[in-house]
Amino acid sequence: MMNIEVVLSPALLHLSDISSKNVVVIDILRATSTICTAIHEGAEAVKAVKDVEQAKALGVQGYITAAERNGQKIDGFDMGNSPFECMNGAVLGKKIALTTTNGTKCIEAAANAGAANVLSGSFLNLDATVDWLVKDGRDVVLFCAGWKDSFNLEDTLFAGSMASMLSDKTACLIDCDAALMSIDLYNLAKGNLMDYLKKSSHYKRLSHLHHDEDMVYCLQGSIFQTVVGVVDTEMKKM
Amino acid sequence: MMNIEVVLSPALLHLSDISSKNVVVIDILRATSTICTAIHEGAEAVKAVKDVEQAKALGVQGYITAAERNGQKIDGFDMGNSPFECMNGAVLGKKIALTTTNGTKCIEAAANAGAANVLSGSFLNLDATVDWLVKDGRDVVLFCAGWKDSFNLEDTLFAGSMASMLSDKTACLIDCDAALMSIDLYNLAKGNLMDYLKKSSHYKRLSHLHHDEDMVYCLQGSIFQTVVGVVDTEMKKM
Repeated sequence: MMNIEVVLSPALLHLSDISSKNVVVIDILRATSTICTAIHEGAEAVKAVKDVEQAKALGVQGYITAAERNGQKIDGFDMGNSPFECMNGAVLGKKIALTTTNGTKCIEAAANAGAANVLSGSFLNLDATVDWLVKDGRDVVLFCAGWKDSFNLEDTLFAGSMASMLSDKTACLIDCDAALMSIDLYNLAKGNLMDYLKKSSHYKRLSHLHHDEDMVYCLQGSIFQTVVGVVDTEMKKM
Repeated sequence: MMNIEVVLSPALLHLSDISSKNVVVIDILRATSTICTAIHEGAEAVKAVKDVEQAKALGVQGYITAAERNGQKIDGFDMGNSPFECMNGAVLGKKIALTTTNGTKCIEAAANAGAANVLSGSFLNLDATVDWLVKDGRDVVLFCAGWKDSFNLEDTLFAGSMASMLSDKTACLIDCDAALMSIDLYNLAKGNLMDYLKKSSHYKRLSHLHHDEDMVYCLQGSIFQTVVGVVDTEMKKM
């Protein structure tokens, strides 16, 4: 029986014992969607780092540097945090050092807390990731990055979507109020995720910064089969 | 324009600036429902304290002592945390020192963080409390006590119910994803709150401890008009 738990914010991660479990880090708009896209587009690895300085230092070692804070690319870096920047051969065969406002620190936190595997969650490879988790069989923690430790709607919707799909495909135990809420919220919104999210704080933030295309892209279901997770401290194809 | 925010757990309270706002502490099953009932039943005051020892010490000063941990009354105290213990004249004219697993520490935390007023939230006096908040007009923070810092469904439903009712009665700004989610969840569950909550972790816990009657009681809408909040460090009639 696969136990499914949802963590709604990095500030709540300490309440869950994630050791020896599969943890899916969720920062749908946009870090984990961008990471999945980069690997699918042939990047060798994405190194998720907490600090801008760490990303810069990796640049010296030949990494493409990517940095975003508050939804905006930081000046002096090769990329921001948009999946479109990873397309058309831009990252093929390359390593990327990525730091973002919310998602990248969660990848590090999950790895440090002893997770068996840390995967990058996105709608773009949802089916393939669910199949991987079902085959692996370990308990699953769906870890929402949120916004600066606050709850957000888009990551919660993804958690609900993945929990729902997992429980359709294998015998699951869901004894976690956050997971139950996420599933109900997803069922409410799934007819049109983009429409539902128009009221959310991050939609407004990204829309104001002209990232509407990114959002449309990130909310598409299963357009590729690449499963992405931490392998030897970097995000790679699993 | 009344700004409405929802805090989903005590572990997330530090993210919100609650100073000079009206904070409604929500521990629907059962602390804040019991406090409202006690005051409505004529208790002079309920002193919410964090520690069992503090409650015991107040007993020496003539307070009725009430203590609950993990859903159960603690031996040696006059009461546990059931609203029924406050009925039939048991608390009339008395002061109660109450400590519970989740709710009472939140009352103290909200008061210490400089809230303008700290109210006790319950379905039992929802209409009256909403009217009070609308009349007062300050911004409102709906503060869910949760379960040992984890998100829970019942407090979130109440937050959604109150946010929804406030925005029906006055011009509100709701730019908080947690509040938006709470309202949607409430609209989903409002047809039968008890049925909806049967999947929740705390329903199962309290039902196992034979507190079903308490839950039925606490989920009733607006059976009295008494508004309850902190006055000079104790919960009293506002």
